[in-house]
Amino acid sequence: MTSTMMDVPLQIRRLLEHGATIHGGSRVVTATGTASGLHETTFADVARGAARLAGALAALGVQPGDRVATFMWNNNRHVEAYFAVPAMGAVLHPLNIRLFPEQIAFTANHAADRVVIVDNSLLPGFAKLLPSLKSVRHVIVAGAADRGVLEGTGVGVHDYESLLAAQPVTYDWPEVDERAAAAMCYTSGTTGHPKGVVYSHRSIYLHALAEAMPDVFDLSARDLLLTVVPQFHVLAWGLPYAAFATGTSLAMPDRFLAPEPLAAFIAAARPAKGAGVPTVWMGLLQYADAHPEADLSSLTDLVVGGSAMSEALMRGLDARGITGLHAWGMTEMSPLGTLSRPPAGAKEEDVDGYRLTQGRFAAPVEARLVGPDGETITWDGASVGELEVRGPWITGSYYLDDDEERFDEGWLRTGDVGTITHDGYLRLTDRARDVIKSGGEWISSVELEGHLAAHPDVVEAAVVGVPDDTWGERPLATVVIKEGASVEVSELREFLSTKVAKWQLPERWAVVPEIPKTSVGKFDKKIIRAAYAHDDLNVTTLG
Amino acid sequence: MTSTMMDVPLQIRRLLEHGATIHGGSRVVTATGTASGLHETTFADVARGAARLAGALAALGVQPGDRVATFMWNNNRHVEAYFAVPAMGAVLHPLNIRLFPEQIAFTANHAADRVVIVDNSLLPGFAKLLPSLKSVRHVIVAGAADRGVLEGTGVGVHDYESLLAAQPVTYDWPEVDERAAAAMCYTSGTTGHPKGVVYSHRSIYLHALAEAMPDVFDLSARDLLLTVVPQFHVLAWGLPYAAFATGTSLAMPDRFLAPEPLAAFIAAARPAKGAGVPTVWMGLLQYADAHPEADLSSLTDLVVGGSAMSEALMRGLDARGITGLHAWGMTEMSPLGTLSRPPAGAKEEDVDGYRLTQGRFAAPVEARLVGPDGETITWDGASVGELEVRGPWITGSYYLDDDEERFDEGWLRTGDVGTITHDGYLRLTDRARDVIKSGGEWISSVELEGHLAAHPDVVEAAVVGVPDDTWGERPLATVVIKEGASVEVSELREFLSTKVAKWQLPERWAVVPEIPKTSVGKFDKKIIRAAYAHDDLNVTTLG
Repeated sequence: MTSTMMDVPLQIRRLLEHGATIHGGSRVVTATGTASGLHETTFADVARGAARLAGALAALGVQPGDRVATFMWNNNRHVEAYFAVPAMGAVLHPLNIRLFPEQIAFTANHAADRVVIVDNSLLPGFAKLLPSLKSVRHVIVAGAADRGVLEGTGVGVHDYESLLAAQPVTYDWPEVDERAAAAMCYTSGTTGHPKGVVYSHRSIYLHALAEAMPDVFDLSARDLLLTVVPQFHVLAWGLPYAAFATGTSLAMPDRFLAPEPLAAFIAAARPAKGAGVPTVWMGLLQYADAHPEADLSSLTDLVVGGSAMSEALMRGLDARGITGLHAWGMTEMSPLGTLSRPPAGAKEEDVDGYRLTQGRFAAPVEARLVGPDGETITWDGASVGELEVRGPWITGSYYLDDDEERFDEGWLRTGDVGTITHDGYLRLTDRARDVIKSGGEWISSVELEGHLAAHPDVVEAAVVGVPDDTWGERPLATVVIKEGASVEVSELREFLSTKVAKWQLPERWAVVPEIPKTSVGKFDKKIIRAAYAHDDLNVTTLG
Repeated sequence: MTSTMMDVPLQIRRLLEHGATIHGGSRVVTATGTASGLHETTFADVARGAARLAGALAALGVQPGDRVATFMWNNNRHVEAYFAVPAMGAVLHPLNIRLFPEQIAFTANHAADRVVIVDNSLLPGFAKLLPSLKSVRHVIVAGAADRGVLEGTGVGVHDYESLLAAQPVTYDWPEVDERAAAAMCYTSGTTGHPKGVVYSHRSIYLHALAEAMPDVFDLSARDLLLTVVPQFHVLAWGLPYAAFATGTSLAMPDRFLAPEPLAAFIAAARPAKGAGVPTVWMGLLQYADAHPEADLSSLTDLVVGGSAMSEALMRGLDARGITGLHAWGMTEMSPLGTLSRPPAGAKEEDVDGYRLTQGRFAAPVEARLVGPDGETITWDGASVGELEVRGPWITGSYYLDDDEERFDEGWLRTGDVGTITHDGYLRLTDRARDVIKSGGEWISSVELEGHLAAHPDVVEAAVVGVPDDTWGERPLATVVIKEGASVEVSELREFLSTKVAKWQLPERWAVVPEIPKTSVGKFDKKIIRAAYAHDDLNVTTLG
């Protein structure tokens, strides 16, 4: 039996039209970095700009399915591109300006971007990049700029405003299949090339509806949302689309992300809600602590995602009357996975514990925990497994890539390891590659490292898994001892035995002068494992 | 270019699984009408009950696509049926117990219902109905009852609890196409047979997500929602599905809808939010005014839908600190169309005006106004047109019916006439059949009636359209004059000329002893038009 419902596809153009009509007066407020402050435009204006941009792109020969890249900060023109490109049937590819130039070039070439829209403030860097972009035929520069730096590259160079001025303020948006590509982003994997994820009209639309829900970002037409998460990072968590679905006004910081101008922007635009990574909020708090004149008083709720919200950040926000809401997701997940709000009736003393978990899954995201031997792990808040997810906005593959290891019979392997409580709160504890698989059980290297680092004579400690004939893998503890201290590794093992189960205690120990680190300051466990394999560590075996 | 997103269908089973796991502790609280008060169960329990029910229905021979009807109040077992039936691939058909018996039989026969689940309290009425239900093979009675009243009818008669007890608490839910039928409801049209609308898994799922959004019903896992709108009416506005999508607990009044037991239920369960028709809320307010001991203090937000929220109801709710939220929809629309929350930055003096409009459209609902000659009407808050809607949860036809007049090139003609402001607020003023089409313009009979009824010498007034050689149609005003008053119709016309444009003034007037009414007390305009056609009215022509 089929239903009598209309078959109306879920499309970006419909979000655009909804925002432009029902919420035509909602605003995009962009920071200008000047004392006079703010550039304001309306959703109706953005829609007119999007129509003009689509006309201009079509005039440049952009066809359905063609990739149109952006190299831009968060601002009103970038929002225009977010709607124009997918709504006209092309594919938006926001280039991640924070990647190394070689990686940016890799992603642009891998995606075969035809056109790039570039913010004038990013033009110098982009000009250096352009010669390595093999498929680009046109560059559109947004804002006044010396476009001469792009001369001689053989691509068409255009001024955004002039190009749009020649086009009408309406566009005959096509009907597209809701499963067609709408936008793409690349992961910034620490190893290997970035991998592409291609979002559909359907996935973006569903994500926008669910993201707006009260237990997720809680977005209404009465809100002004400080969107610090960059538009070049997982589509700014999909927030521009959720904004047009709900009428939520957007406060866009453009390139003014340093604490001082960001604080000035907040004082001028007065957003109540915001979304961004912990480092930005931490920097903002530190700035405000040092500058009592900074006015953050409009802020009430900040979503913290991208990396974990620390207890220090939560307390710092609390002290200013701002609720930090912990969210977790991935580029592969559009990115929404979870957001943490304490459950109904939570005891006062449990509330902060709930807030520091990754939170509960939004309805369309299905989750399961899988153990070392592929078994399903119970949601009891204690049993550990690798998190796998499934849903209509989660990627089932990578673009032109056959990394099948990341998928498990229709589920995405997140590479994160943790627990889920009986009432659905996710707590991630480790990356899968950092857990040690010992005889069908997992040992958390992060947990052992935390306990060791808490010993008064230890500066820092890294624990890695090393091959073991009996158990498959066992932990190796490498520790840096404080200058002047004379603690023995047997004493450290004794200390650790008061913290974790006996079978988790490392047998292999090495005192080292320092822990090798990656360029971003994380423990470089590859180097430790290699040193162990080459017998370059002075290992003591205990137990 | 296709996306890399997983192709995960939107299914009722996924809402069920989400609610049963992530929100397994959320509650369904059902009124019992006794002093001890409340029956409580959890979403996890409801899911186990749903699995058992699906097992029982399968054992009775229910196949994918078969219709399973309910004849039930709002309660936990009815919620079990809401999930079990669609999730197993069958089609839920809640019979509207408030229709005339012949109409109920018509809908059950038209839908070809195979099984009916009946609340014990409704068994006597159902027993009388059963002989006229031609396709029903099994009746399942929920709750203790004398099932003997169903003997001799040739159908299988079962006890709900016994049937479920024989089944496991899990069910191997099938994957179904998201466009497959999940549930159906019939409109209760005042003329002709009821018409069937068949909802899909997709339409119900999308409706649930959008309904939960902050500017719509604003549903979170911290809420307990008093669901007064019956489950036999447009799927209780889809709220049980939205509840499982969000973890919102449900307070279900069962058959205890009279003001006194409803007030007692509210005092015991203490819901903050609620959804229902104006008459229920009005009755509740009147009861509470007369009974100071009634405790409605838990209520903060009540959605008022089904018919228009009057200013008196809004003020009455305001006086108790309860916000009345005006919503509008149709059976054909799942039913969500609009909900009214004032816009950001509305002036204090405009807020109540906004609240009394039908409100703004939820994102997936597209709307347009169409004028008498098929032209599109501007959204200026003044120009009047018939409202047409389109979207993924709006019906594109009626079940086994070819009423094509209700559809206009892919849009549903709502039969409602009104205006939309530039910022998307809908104000419905008339039913399309009550507007008078005069020379390509519409005249609102409701508006003229309102003005006439406000005259001190007028008891009531009905205005209908009658044929006119020059204008196609012109208004005829029929008025009942107060006993003892001696006002002339020319004076009434003069009075009206201070209220409306000259071209809207009726030429034809008739003083009548009373206005003919339908069985539900509405003006019976068919009878007035017929009387005019047969020259049975003493018509004065003016102007």
